[in-house]
Amino acid sequence: MADNSFGTLFRFTTFGESHGPAIGCIVDGVPPRLSLSENDIQPYLDRRKPGTSRFVTQRREDDHVRILSGVFDGKTTGTPIALMIENTDQRSKDYSNIAQQYRPGHADYAYDAKYGIRDYRGGGRSSARETASRVAAGAIAHHILASACPDLTIRGAVVQIGDHAVNRDNWNWDTKRDNPFFSPDAGIVPIWEDFLDDTRKKGSSAGAIIEIVADGVPAGLGGPIYNKLDAQLAAAMMSINAVKGVEIGDGFAAAAIPGDQAGDTMRANADGKPVFTSNHAGGVLGGISSGQPLVVRFVVKPTSSILTPRPSIDSDGNEIEVVTKGRHDPCVGIRAVPIGEAMMAVVLADMLMQQTAQCGLINPE
Amino acid sequence: MADNSFGTLFRFTTFGESHGPAIGCIVDGVPPRLSLSENDIQPYLDRRKPGTSRFVTQRREDDHVRILSGVFDGKTTGTPIALMIENTDQRSKDYSNIAQQYRPGHADYAYDAKYGIRDYRGGGRSSARETASRVAAGAIAHHILASACPDLTIRGAVVQIGDHAVNRDNWNWDTKRDNPFFSPDAGIVPIWEDFLDDTRKKGSSAGAIIEIVADGVPAGLGGPIYNKLDAQLAAAMMSINAVKGVEIGDGFAAAAIPGDQAGDTMRANADGKPVFTSNHAGGVLGGISSGQPLVVRFVVKPTSSILTPRPSIDSDGNEIEVVTKGRHDPCVGIRAVPIGEAMMAVVLADMLMQQTAQCGLINPE
Amino acid sequence: MADNSFGTLFRFTTFGESHGPAIGCIVDGVPPRLSLSENDIQPYLDRRKPGTSRFVTQRREDDHVRILSGVFDGKTTGTPIALMIENTDQRSKDYSNIAQQYRPGHADYAYDAKYGIRDYRGGGRSSARETASRVAAGAIAHHILASACPDLTIRGAVVQIGDHAVNRDNWNWDTKRDNPFFSPDAGIVPIWEDFLDDTRKKGSSAGAIIEIVADGVPAGLGGPIYNKLDAQLAAAMMSINAVKGVEIGDGFAAAAIPGDQAGDTMRANADGKPVFTSNHAGGVLGGISSGQPLVVRFVVKPTSSILTPRPSIDSDGNEIEVVTKGRHDPCVGIRAVPIGEAMMAVVLADMLMQQTAQCGLINPE
Amino acid sequence: MADNSFGTLFRFTTFGESHGPAIGCIVDGVPPRLSLSENDIQPYLDRRKPGTSRFVTQRREDDHVRILSGVFDGKTTGTPIALMIENTDQRSKDYSNIAQQYRPGHADYAYDAKYGIRDYRGGGRSSARETASRVAAGAIAHHILASACPDLTIRGAVVQIGDHAVNRDNWNWDTKRDNPFFSPDAGIVPIWEDFLDDTRKKGSSAGAIIEIVADGVPAGLGGPIYNKLDAQLAAAMMSINAVKGVEIGDGFAAAAIPGDQAGDTMRANADGKPVFTSNHAGGVLGGISSGQPLVVRFVVKPTSSILTPRPSIDSDGNEIEVVTKGRHDPCVGIRAVPIGEAMMAVVLADMLMQQTAQCGLINPE
Repeated sequence: MADNSFGTLFRFTTFGESHGPAIGCIVDGVPPRLSLSENDIQPYLDRRKPGTSRFVTQRREDDHVRILSGVFDGKTTGTPIALMIENTDQRSKDYSNIAQQYRPGHADYAYDAKYGIRDYRGGGRSSARETASRVAAGAIAHHILASACPDLTIRGAVVQIGDHAVNRDNWNWDTKRDNPFFSPDAGIVPIWEDFLDDTRKKGSSAGAIIEIVADGVPAGLGGPIYNKLDAQLAAAMMSINAVKGVEIGDGFAAAAIPGDQAGDTMRANADGKPVFTSNHAGGVLGGISSGQPLVVRFVVKPTSSILTPRPSIDSDGNEIEVVTKGRHDPCVGIRAVPIGEAMMAVVLADMLMQQTAQCGLINPE
Repeated sequence: MADNSFGTLFRFTTFGESHGPAIGCIVDGVPPRLSLSENDIQPYLDRRKPGTSRFVTQRREDDHVRILSGVFDGKTTGTPIALMIENTDQRSKDYSNIAQQYRPGHADYAYDAKYGIRDYRGGGRSSARETASRVAAGAIAHHILASACPDLTIRGAVVQIGDHAVNRDNWNWDTKRDNPFFSPDAGIVPIWEDFLDDTRKKGSSAGAIIEIVADGVPAGLGGPIYNKLDAQLAAAMMSINAVKGVEIGDGFAAAAIPGDQAGDTMRANADGKPVFTSNHAGGVLGGISSGQPLVVRFVVKPTSSILTPRPSIDSDGNEIEVVTKGRHDPCVGIRAVPIGEAMMAVVLADMLMQQTAQCGLINPE
Repeated sequence: MADNSFGTLFRFTTFGESHGPAIGCIVDGVPPRLSLSENDIQPYLDRRKPGTSRFVTQRREDDHVRILSGVFDGKTTGTPIALMIENTDQRSKDYSNIAQQYRPGHADYAYDAKYGIRDYRGGGRSSARETASRVAAGAIAHHILASACPDLTIRGAVVQIGDHAVNRDNWNWDTKRDNPFFSPDAGIVPIWEDFLDDTRKKGSSAGAIIEIVADGVPAGLGGPIYNKLDAQLAAAMMSINAVKGVEIGDGFAAAAIPGDQAGDTMRANADGKPVFTSNHAGGVLGGISSGQPLVVRFVVKPTSSILTPRPSIDSDGNEIEVVTKGRHDPCVGIRAVPIGEAMMAVVLADMLMQQTAQCGLINPE
Repeated sequence: MADNSFGTLFRFTTFGESHGPAIGCIVDGVPPRLSLSENDIQPYLDRRKPGTSRFVTQRREDDHVRILSGVFDGKTTGTPIALMIENTDQRSKDYSNIAQQYRPGHADYAYDAKYGIRDYRGGGRSSARETASRVAAGAIAHHILASACPDLTIRGAVVQIGDHAVNRDNWNWDTKRDNPFFSPDAGIVPIWEDFLDDTRKKGSSAGAIIEIVADGVPAGLGGPIYNKLDAQLAAAMMSINAVKGVEIGDGFAAAAIPGDQAGDTMRANADGKPVFTSNHAGGVLGGISSGQPLVVRFVVKPTSSILTPRPSIDSDGNEIEVVTKGRHDPCVGIRAVPIGEAMMAVVLADMLMQQTAQCGLINPE
């Protein structure tokens, strides 16, 4: 589809480079007459905002969102909602030395190969600044879901940093609010703190695995074959900066689980409704939601912007050494939690609208 | 997008249920004047065909493809190419006892929840029969790539069955042809044989991990942000039956690799062109191909159709026990290799056309 | 969008050349559990069929449609419905002399310019055979509308042939069934008969204007700005072979109507609901249906396949004279009536589903 | 497709209401390395701007456009280009009395029926303010075409106001610049002046017919069947506010032209290339450009905002009388010329990119 748009019915298009005047998006297909204001969107951006702990980027962006259209008298009109965030803290001088450099692990070389030109300041369009736009669009999606599916919740957590995984026996969603890592396991927090302080001192960085869980998802969302819910979620998460893999339910562990243990069996509850006895599937069967919790994980590679010098070349073919100075996350995965939650929301809102259209129009019985 | 279509410019739409009259697809956007006949497509279907070893389904489908349109005098006309495969070996009687049953791990319940109706014979639309349609479309994509990028190759292999992974030091693509597992490691073959014979006797099944590698991919394919090459590949592979995860390059292992080792550094060759010293990225940077080998892996869960009885319920809410008789693969992942290759081909063909459109139209210099 | 697909949610893709093995389509997004069989579709094809009067093509196609997928136990499953019509009466020898010729008014030259190749037999993909596919898809759309909007009717008529227009004071829909012209005015029939017999003897052809009216259309269909109902109808009708213009309501006559007479004023009925006092708008305001009758007209140019010799060139640049022998309509516009009705149906079905998705999901009050 | 987006490869999405903070668009798919600045876009907006003669709206908008992204160092980067225009002269108080009113001929009632809410100020999203966004997007399309097809020109003119049509024998494109009507016929100007002064004094309005001509269009653009060039142009023009019909070439006059005169015959020039002897087709054959001038006409109905009181109802069902005070065009058709030119440009840019993708990728000879 269009490079910078996501979705079919709930559909948003983002714009903006790291050091351009502004970033933002247009969100189309929003149901009318929902109450909406900047105050409904700003909190989602604040959760994503850099500068909230010593473990995330020290760049200070207010990420103040403005609604430019699509809302009247505090309610959505059904017409497209444009959101804009001015870039205020860019510090161009941090980047001027890299105009010609291809930083290892970054998209610099690939953009040049594709377009023959790139805005090198802060990574230009490849910058994680773009994720603010999708979190803003995601806020609207969250809002729609709150009206359409009041029992639906979307929550994300970091489940691994480096090779330190959480202890799932300690899982407590409330723990998330008490630590800067979105960790659901209180016990892992000091381990991650030490690990990241150590990583930062070494001038290196660490990867992470994020898990997003949606509860209360109605069964029936997702349209086989190429519009499968898990396929759309895979595309959604993989499109986030620095993501290198997406899995659902057991994910890659499913390779080694014997078939007679891997299926989720069903029993009937008092009303004859199916109750699943496990959730290996992660909430999706044949590409369609089963009503079980949707469990998606994605891996974020370690930040490519580190202080350790590494060999590379520049656009003229000269061999150079690259040190990416400036303000960088030691672990960008931490900030990906609200982004993953946003992508879960936009996919579910879109799928819900599509299901309503095809299967909610007529009741032949 | 439309549930049953994939792609933007090279775009195909599939149809067909396991036990309907036929399956097939329409492929749109094919460049004109390429020579094409059934003989160019049939070999790809044969590689996918069941009944070629004791380790895959014993259902005997000829999968004989017919071209119904879009080809004249042996050349593509640029108009849509319709391909059809008649279903000839359906054995309806194998499935009549499951009309009401929800088989664990299958899409039965989810389809009922979504549509309120399902063709239960052989899984209906959720059957892996559909993959024959995409392999046929993929054959055309392979054909386009052969003309547009003669140096581009796409090859897939099974790299793990159960928890038995190949030894990458033994990797030899030619080995693939000498064993029924698409294994690139001769040494693992007897291990897999014993493991699957054992699995079959137990009435169980095994999962697998498949790796697809594309060499000779031009740099510049893929359009950030939501049309990233890896995001499209993730959707493509996740849409294959029974897939529960997709990763690229280091994939989920990237979580634990230190940042100073995780980036692929570059040196210059004699012409000043960049040469990468490693391929952690798997051939994609910032969503755009870098020219490096594209390395994608996906996991196929163990077949849910097994002889071991498992508890479940039926559509009336009665608790039952399910034994899925009939002819079933002990490891469906093996057959996914040609399917993964097909999906790689259709994504690359589409991306190549999109890149040509945006960046090949004008040369401002 | 994809060249050979139409629609967003109710979406169909057609294939097939005039002299290929078959034509057909895949229809996606059909609501589940509607009863459907070939008997529901065949009558629409029969109305379009050539050979039913001396005024339309003498080619004898049975246009027998087969459903290949998407229906089970006589009901739609929600999965894609593939329809196929075998080409049985092609008479290739009628066309062999034109392989190199560019027939004036036909698409021969344009196809060669675009693709560098064309299936010249019967016009290949440019043939009006393709319209059988869309009429088949339209039959399913009509079927959906019958369930979703039982009060909605779609009726088309020819309102002008050559420069002989119907007398609107005589308009009677029932008249349509009693003449071979789909004329709603009994008085014009003998005039058209004489005119067309005369035209045929001269070896010439005539154009026509067709009017399609939909009554009982709910208000609110169509989504401004680029998904306006009238914009989609314009594209739909203009895509029919030989159409050169589309208008709605007053159409081009609106240029000369004073503004104080051109708007449709409203009064309130007993329930306070709006009643329009006229229908200059043709049922669309600001791109959205108003609940008024939808009135769309399109013009079909005179057939370019005539016996009168005309100068042209061939693909080698030689000047030639073209006489298109064979079996040809003196007025293709007559057969366009069921095609226009089909396109009206597919647009309304799609719009209805889109409206349901965006505005039917949530009721904030 | 998405309501507020147009195009497949060159694709833009607009936002903004008449009295919201701003209007604008995001343009995606722009080829990289084209020089672009606000100075390339502003002139197109100025031509559209109200307040440039006594015959067009007296609302004084500067329509000052800002580029927010997608341009670096004065060149397009290939990333999405966001354009924004602040609304500065809204005069809300002009509209407060119509909050409940359904103005005849306007979209008020239809928007309420669709969304259950509308921004009534100045027509909200239905306002012609939106056309500034498309003209801005069109400026970029014009820019692309100037690089890709230097011989291609797009020019529009008014050819009829009320029932006063231009004299085509006097046609001179240069005349357009010397009158406020975009008229190519100097002789009609005083007639139109008198007619519109008279219309205005009567508190009424007049319709118009606009003709857009593109010369130097390469043959081969447009993709049959549903992506026909004329079908896309029909949708493009019909989507403009107040348009009620679109025709190409002879248009509706084709109904009455005998078939032996209606086709454009071809002769060979010195190089054996085809030369057409007429242009009844208007530059399109079978939905594909023939290389002939593209001639498209559309009709704009008389403005519905007039001073003459007319009966209507309000949203509570009360019968009222509507006088739309404020600043209104006596003939909105005049301002539609640059808008029609913009839509021609966006369609051609998109078609050119699509043709390059499918037929420019491979040369099998």
